[in-house]
This record gives sequence, structure tokens and C-alpha cells, in this order.
Amino acid sequence: MYQPPRGTRDFLPDEMYKRNWVLDQIREVYEAYGFEPLGTPAFESWELLKMKSGEDVINQIYYFKDKSDRELGLRFDLTTSLARVVATHREFQMPFKRYAIGTVWRYENPSEKRFREFWQADADTVGVGDVIADAEVLAAAVDCLRKMGFEGFIIKINDRRILEEFVLKAGVPKERVLDAIRAVDKLLKVRKEGVIEELQRLSIDSIEAEKLLDVLSLSGAPEYVLSEAESRLKESPKGLEGCKALRDMVNYAKSFGYAEYLVVELSLARGLDYYTGPVFEVSAKGYEDYGSIAGGGRYDEIINIFGGDTTPATGISFGIERLVPLLEIKGGFEGVTLGVDVLVAPISEKVKREAIKVAQELRAAGNRTIIDLLGRRFSKQLEYADKKHVRKVVIIGERELAEGCLTVRDMKTGEQIKVERVNLLECIRS
Amino acid sequence: MYQPPRGTRDFLPDEMYKRNWVLDQIREVYEAYGFEPLGTPAFESWELLKMKSGEDVINQIYYFKDKSDRELGLRFDLTTSLARVVATHREFQMPFKRYAIGTVWRYENPSEKRFREFWQADADTVGVGDVIADAEVLAAAVDCLRKMGFEGFIIKINDRRILEEFVLKAGVPKERVLDAIRAVDKLLKVRKEGVIEELQRLSIDSIEAEKLLDVLSLSGAPEYVLSEAESRLKESPKGLEGCKALRDMVNYAKSFGYAEYLVVELSLARGLDYYTGPVFEVSAKGYEDYGSIAGGGRYDEIINIFGGDTTPATGISFGIERLVPLLEIKGGFEGVTLGVDVLVAPISEKVKREAIKVAQELRAAGNRTIIDLLGRRFSKQLEYADKKHVRKVVIIGERELAEGCLTVRDMKTGEQIKVERVNLLECIRS
Repeated sequence: MYQPPRGTRDFLPDEMYKRNWVLDQIREVYEAYGFEPLGTPAFESWELLKMKSGEDVINQIYYFKDKSDRELGLRFDLTTSLARVVATHREFQMPFKRYAIGTVWRYENPSEKRFREFWQADADTVGVGDVIADAEVLAAAVDCLRKMGFEGFIIKINDRRILEEFVLKAGVPKERVLDAIRAVDKLLKVRKEGVIEELQRLSIDSIEAEKLLDVLSLSGAPEYVLSEAESRLKESPKGLEGCKALRDMVNYAKSFGYAEYLVVELSLARGLDYYTGPVFEVSAKGYEDYGSIAGGGRYDEIINIFGGDTTPATGISFGIERLVPLLEIKGGFEGVTLGVDVLVAPISEKVKREAIKVAQELRAAGNRTIIDLLGRRFSKQLEYADKKHVRKVVIIGERELAEGCLTVRDMKTGEQIKVERVNLLECIRS
Repeated sequence: MYQPPRGTRDFLPDEMYKRNWVLDQIREVYEAYGFEPLGTPAFESWELLKMKSGEDVINQIYYFKDKSDRELGLRFDLTTSLARVVATHREFQMPFKRYAIGTVWRYENPSEKRFREFWQADADTVGVGDVIADAEVLAAAVDCLRKMGFEGFIIKINDRRILEEFVLKAGVPKERVLDAIRAVDKLLKVRKEGVIEELQRLSIDSIEAEKLLDVLSLSGAPEYVLSEAESRLKESPKGLEGCKALRDMVNYAKSFGYAEYLVVELSLARGLDYYTGPVFEVSAKGYEDYGSIAGGGRYDEIINIFGGDTTPATGISFGIERLVPLLEIKGGFEGVTLGVDVLVAPISEKVKREAIKVAQELRAAGNRTIIDLLGRRFSKQLEYADKKHVRKVVIIGERELAEGCLTVRDMKTGEQIKVERVNLLECIRS
């Protein structure tokens, strides 16, 4: 028997209703923020994908050739294609604010939480150097989560320049800075000793490594952490720029309405290599252990690397495979309508055609409606209705029909009432 | 400079708004008909894809191996995965009605109308042998088109059994029937002589071939064409079954409300090999030359071939790349809102934070809203607003703000009015 390929899954209807609901909420909020939809192909040229992905990700790309021997790869994120589009469309009006919701693929070791096919929902602003854009993409993410019923958040922010400066100050040679940042990025995920070992391998002595980790483990209220950082970065203009950027973000966040949730965490790097400024990660209050459900950052160099003019950019991304299970745990899907609203059940073959007409009326009025298609006994129809979460059954009998009437059964209470056909829509609505 | 891979495209925002609108309309109607969403992976095992695709399509599949040397292929339709899911989930309640909207890939020769990456929107009913299910999927397609503003249709129907019986009667050996049907399928697309040559290659003499094409070129009102077919198929129970199925479909169509558009066309085969009963194709009245925009048919054998219990199935599919350009020609997108509703324009840096707050209020009320993120002069902001289809600009000046007021500019008329801040939402709504 054939299964979906390893690392991929089928989503059956009850799961899909929920996933679609999540995507709809995100889309609505992204559009309210003036992000505009952009569609790009599922695969891109291998050369393009390689340029941005960094070593770790390159090995995860599904690589293939088409029948003309073009080297291609399935997209591993939605940002690469955005950067390609902006690099080639020099006529775009800036800022270019776009959202994209779609599948991406990475050949990872599959686990309960990790898949090879997964969905991302991204909002990015291209063409704005000021962190008002970073603050705004974060605001959009927060509002998406609010719309889905979340109330409190922990929003961790950092700036790659601060992190880089501290790593350089600790004695890491310039060409190894990214390796060191990747090691530090794991600080909170593995034990501290592991990071120190890793840093020693990058030729930092253990005392410097300890000192570095002491600084980078600073985390908390922005004012406190940033003051501490600034006092240690006096000689480092780039580091101070990073601190200034975060201070500005905090200020903007006050106007956007989420400043209370901000935490500066100096070890936060966000895996990807290409970030150049602020980085951020959102998790839900009460579900901190679950980890982040959205994250992003500023990447001012990629569009230039892809051959476009130097263009600043920042964005945020939801991992749908992270978000949906969390909403499930939280009970956040209770308001989502699963299944079908109404089953139209003809009692005999003779009234089947009338049943179709009734169903068409209910459908035209927006009710999710099914008819019995198998000519089953009424009790069988009710069983089926139950499995499909049907809320009302419209029973069509010959005698009632002659009187211009129908029977409506409430599946929750089992109550049946006789309704005049002209009043059916009204009765179903209530 | 990097382009999207050959045969694929980027969809810029104005195009995407329209595409999303089309997909939303289809989704809404499919759900009203009680089709439930099913999600399946973008790629499937190569072995599975091969089983259903038929020679022509096999050569069009994007084939690749994953890093464990699994043979995979990008899906070329949405039906294969549906059949796989049904074959493995024996616990499913029948009927299983599902819709799926997603990308599929075929390595075809790209042209203005043909792409290697395209979208399909399918509705299928599994588990119902009676043609009420065929009539219902057609009804759903018709209602999708009505919802998008189409008013008249040409719905061509045929039954593969009729076609097969006529081909057999003409002397085509059983094992070449599919080849002959493929040749006939081109009847309307190429000149008749080409089909006759092709049939001669399948060892039918030219007189028989002429006679066959004379019958199969019958097309018109169902009652007339079916009577003609029945009188010629008296000795052929399978052929008569096909006629009966179409008669039933016509009757159901009367209740569903689209019988007036039905035409029986005896040459209609629909490319794919796996159809077993009724096949159908929908085009829009007034746009007949544009060709079909939806099509489908019954396939009662695939689920069994995939290892499931023998399960009848039927479905219909929209080609989004066919539908969207037709709507464009028809002017069907005039009601679709492109771009952004409101630009909030702060006149100076001092009122920027207040501008953010105003934008947040407008967004919360569902308006697509942008703020000037670049600190540009007002005239530049207006230019940008124009490009983004902005309808109203909310101007925030220092003096007015002190009075609790804002200025709202209508981008169409250029008219500006002063509004009390508390009345802003109301003013924007109107």
C-alpha cells in the first residue's frame, strides 16, 4: 500500500479545515497591514538556491534536473524567491511589502515536529532601512496571533551586529564569526559546556569563551540589557548601531502596541547566515516551552548578491507546522467549523429530485450542504451525518412535501420540527 | 539576472489578488457543496505516479531522487494522491467528497497558454456509482462559474463506454481501443483526415473509419444524439449503459439547474486513459473559441489499481491558468479590490508615532492600510499611493492633530476633508 513519501503527510479534512482557518487569519492580517500577495514557483534554479542558503541548508535542498538538464531545486524558503523577484524587477515602487503563503521543502531528519514538506507564511518589507519596517512586520505577526486567540507573548529581539561585535571582541577571527554565532545560537538549546568546546575549536581560549557567554546570556527588559551591552561596546560603533536599532524598535513597538512583550536576548542569532541587523522570535505566553512560532530579521545584502541594487529588507515568517499543533494544545480551534452544516435526507427515491432542489437552495444561501447520494435507509443517513459533524438534517418525506412542508432535525438535541418549505432557510440559519 | 525556471512564472501582486479571488470563489462553492478539503504532498513516489499517468503523462513528470535514493516525482494532477489516500484509508465513511486546490507540474513545451507549473482546483466524490455524483460535481463547477459572473455555458458530455463500443464496432482490436480513442479525441482539434490516417494505422480500413467518424461527429441536444446512438448500439449492452448514464445525468441536471446547457458530443474522450464512464467539459457561452475551462469524468478503477477496495469515483477540475485569462478578457475582475485601501501620511517626523497608532486602528477595522515608512515628502507619498491603488489618504499634520483632527483625501476626486479623529473609521468606511 502506498504511503506519502517519508517526511511528508496527508492532511485529512478535519485537520485541513483548521489549517485553512489559520492561513485565512494570517492572510487577512497581512493584507490589513498592506502586504501584497506575490506568487513564485515551487522550484528555482539550483545556482540561485545555493547562493543564499548557507552550508547547512544546501544539503537539505531537493535537487533535480529537468528534461533539458537544467539544475533545479525545490524552494527551501520563500525569501530566496522574493529576493530574486526584487533583484530583477527594478521598476518596483519602494517600499515593496509582500506576503507569501506556501509550501517549502527541506530534506531533514523527520520527527514528530520536523517534516520535509512544510508551510510558511511570510511578510516582508523591502526598501526600508529604518527599523520601523522591522517593528511593523513584528506588529503584523503579533496581530495574526491575537486574531487566532493568543493574548500574551514573549518577543525576543537582538541585533546581529551586537552579537558579531561581542564575538570579535572575544578574539574570534573575522572569517570564523559566523561559525561562532552558529555555536552561540545553540546556547539555550544545548548545555553551555558544548558551546564552550565549540568556541575553543574556533581558537578562543576557555576564559574568553566563558566571558563571552556571560555577556551573551544577558536577557531581559530592553532598557537594562541594552544599557549593559552599550557600556561594554563603547569602542565599537557597529555594536552601538545595533543597540540603537533595538532602542528604536522598542520605541516603535510602543506605538504599534506590543512593547510590553519585548525582551532583548543577546544570544539570539536565528540560524540563517544572511541576517544583517535586528532578529526576532515570537512565542506565546504560557507556552514558552513550546518554543517560537514566528521569527525573522533584517537581511540588507541578499538582493544585492542576487544582482539587484543594494536594497534593505526585513521580514517575519510563521511556521504553520509549529502554529497548528500549538493552537490544538491551546484549544484554539473550538470556533472553527468542521465538516458539513446540513444533510438533506430524502425518505424515498420519489422525493430525491426535490431533495436536490432543496440542497441547491441551501447551498446558494451559503450552507455547507450534502444530499444522500447512495439512497440509504434513514438510520444509515443519520450515522453518516454524525461522522460528518452535520448540525441539521432536512428530512424530505412524500406526504409532508405534498403539504409544502419539511422536517428539520437538530443533530445535537435530536429534536425534530416540521417547517414550511418557504421558511426553511430561516430555520436553518437559527 | 535570475529568472523563474522555464515554464514557470512569478505572479506579481495585482495578478495574485485576482488569482486568490478566483480560488476563494471556488473554495466557497466547493465547501457549500459539502466537499471537504484534503491536503496531500507535492511529490509522490515515482512508482505510484507511473501507475495512473499513461504514456503521454509519464514523460512529463518531474522525476528526482531524494538523498536516500527514493524515486519521487512532482505530482502531475491532484487525483492520483486522492486515489492513494482513499486506497489506504479504509476507515473512510463513504461517500467521501473532497476538494483540493493546488499546484501541479508537467514538463510540457511551454507556450503562452501552457505552463510547466499550474494550478488545479478539483472536486471529487468517491464511493458513489450512480451518476447523481457526476451530475453534482458538474453542478458545483457551474455554480463556481456563476459566482464568478458567468451566465451561460456549454457543457459537453459523453460516456467512455459509448465511445469504446463504437470504436470496437468499427473493427479496432481491443488492445488498440485506447489508441483509437486518443486519435478521436483530436477530432475537433485537428482536421478529420488526420484522424482517419491515424485510424488506418490502427488497422481500420478507410470506409470503416469514415463511418466511425460520421457517428462520432454527432453532437447536439441530448435527446436527439442519445436516440441516434441507442439505435446504433442495440446489440451492445455496455454502449447502452453509457447512454442510460447520460440520460440519468440529464435528468439530474434538471433538478440541479443546468440541464439547458447540456450537449452530448460523441467524440468527447478527455485525454486521460483512466476514465470509465461519463466525461464532461465546460466552456462559457460567448467564449466557446476559448475552449474548456473545467472538465472531468468518472474513474471507477484507479482506487482498486492502487490497492484499495473497488470504489467508484468521479470528479471535476478547473484549470486556473485557463480560467484567470478568460475572466480577464471578460472583464470579470472589475469587482476585485487590488492594492491597498488607505495610506496614512504623516506630514512630519513628529507625528509619525501618532500615524502608526492611526494605522493600527484602521487595520484592526479591516482596512488594508499602509504608513509612509520612508519619511518622504507628501507629494512623493501621493505618487506612491497612486501606484498602490490607494483609495483614501489620511493626512496627519501637527496643528490639526493638536485639535483632534485629521485630513482625509479621496484619491479619485482629489477632494480633502477635515475629520475629527473619533469619526475617522466611519469616514473611511463611506
